Amino acid sequence: MTNSGKAAGSRAGRLTVIGLGPGEERFLTGQAQAALGEAEAVYGYIPYLERVPTREGQTRHPSDNREELARAGAALAHAAGGARVAMVSGGDPGVFAMAAAVIEAIEAGPAEWRALEVEIVPGITAMLAVAARCGAPLGHDFCAVSLSDNLKPWEVIEQRLRFAAKAGFAMAFYNPVSKARPHQLDAAFDILREELPAEVPVIFGRAVGRPDERIRVVPLGNARGHMADMATCVIVGSPETRIVARPGRPALVYTPRRSGEE
Amino acid sequence: MTNSGKAAGSRAGRLTVIGLGPGEERFLTGQAQAALGEAEAVYGYIPYLERVPTREGQTRHPSDNREELARAGAALAHAAGGARVAMVSGGDPGVFAMAAAVIEAIEAGPAEWRALEVEIVPGITAMLAVAARCGAPLGHDFCAVSLSDNLKPWEVIEQRLRFAAKAGFAMAFYNPVSKARPHQLDAAFDILREELPAEVPVIFGRAVGRPDERIRVVPLGNARGHMADMATCVIVGSPETRIVARPGRPALVYTPRRSGEE
Repeated sequence: MTNSGKAAGSRAGRLTVIGLGPGEERFLTGQAQAALGEAEAVYGYIPYLERVPTREGQTRHPSDNREELARAGAALAHAAGGARVAMVSGGDPGVFAMAAAVIEAIEAGPAEWRALEVEIVPGITAMLAVAARCGAPLGHDFCAVSLSDNLKPWEVIEQRLRFAAKAGFAMAFYNPVSKARPHQLDAAFDILREELPAEVPVIFGRAVGRPDERIRVVPLGNARGHMADMATCVIVGSPETRIVARPGRPALVYTPRRSGEE
Repeated sequence: MTNSGKAAGSRAGRLTVIGLGPGEERFLTGQAQAALGEAEAVYGYIPYLERVPTREGQTRHPSDNREELARAGAALAHAAGGARVAMVSGGDPGVFAMAAAVIEAIEAGPAEWRALEVEIVPGITAMLAVAARCGAPLGHDFCAVSLSDNLKPWEVIEQRLRFAAKAGFAMAFYNPVSKARPHQLDAAFDILREELPAEVPVIFGRAVGRPDERIRVVPLGNARGHMADMATCVIVGSPETRIVARPGRPALVYTPRRSGEE
């Protein structure tokens, strides 16, 4: 389509940012599958790239974590040369992932990058996969917050958590801990314990969609930072979130559609 | 699997709640495709059921809107008879959709419903599809709010919007308008205009993923309720959301990963 009426050498380049979902191939959409098939070059953080089967004639360009902008720039420069380039992202590329980094690079980059066709292919983001595994904890109003202070001051995060609690949102935490920030999740739980009842359910969803998946539900009063690692998405319920016990099966955690009518 | 070692007549039933994504089949995950293929009976709101190809030997049970609990109960009763039943949902079943209704029905229903195998298959929810079509407006902390006051008082919604604005969240609005509630989206914009700069971009994403898709971006100062209908998901940026103009292409709207550093 982008190639119509042009010689192959001068065709317009294209960058497609593809959400792979949280883990196994079953989470891929048909659109993502098709976009991977069309790419001449695939860029991505190493573990995401490893999930993509190799294809003949398709080059692969792995890069390390924390190199989002450089990775985006390399992929855009490659596409500007006329190639069909894919950037793979875990989960959904628009949620704490590569889509914003790519657009940031376009904004700061040479004018020709703005002429490129850019397509973003949505994916199943981690919080939706974790929620599905334990019920419907995000079944009513909710928010998604990155706990990483690499890109914003911790004070901003603290204030955001307090407002989110006052608003009555269930909350999903991305990037809950890292080696450089082992104590922040405990600090976040301490703040929330000041704002919310101790019984609010907290879900730790680790490696959801992968063979080593683990789901753990504890009351906020007992939630501790060491229960999460870098592969964990944490969901904190609202005061209206409920637990439905089931004999011989894991409990279902859900936030009712009806609210605010005490 | 649920059938192993049992006579067919006494096998355990199963209810699978399946997210179809926002529209066309390309948004379906492999997991959702497989789950649809295994079902003996498919329940759902009429327009969602119409998206599912008919299969020989599979019964179909359409129902009207606003009948979530009755639909959930009928599907659970059917599964409790030993069948493999699917409930289809637009978008992601866990986001303002059928998963919470099903669990609510289990909580209120007969004890045997708690013995059922219940699986929730995540899907691409509307806000992620809309975000992908215009850039990455949900690229940093955000919230999702239903503007319907069928299930909560309007005062709760108002207060939630104010806290969300104070928190600095980008916001996605589900159920922004209905015939019974034509004025609430304007009321929501009025509240947000008191809390946020007039330049904050507002995205109206209508029928995303369908042939009649339409995306419109206007500043909050000019946003009006009549720009949305029941098929629209509205995204309101945060004060940090940016617009990248592109010659000959639609602008890209994104919320930078970095924030809070004025």
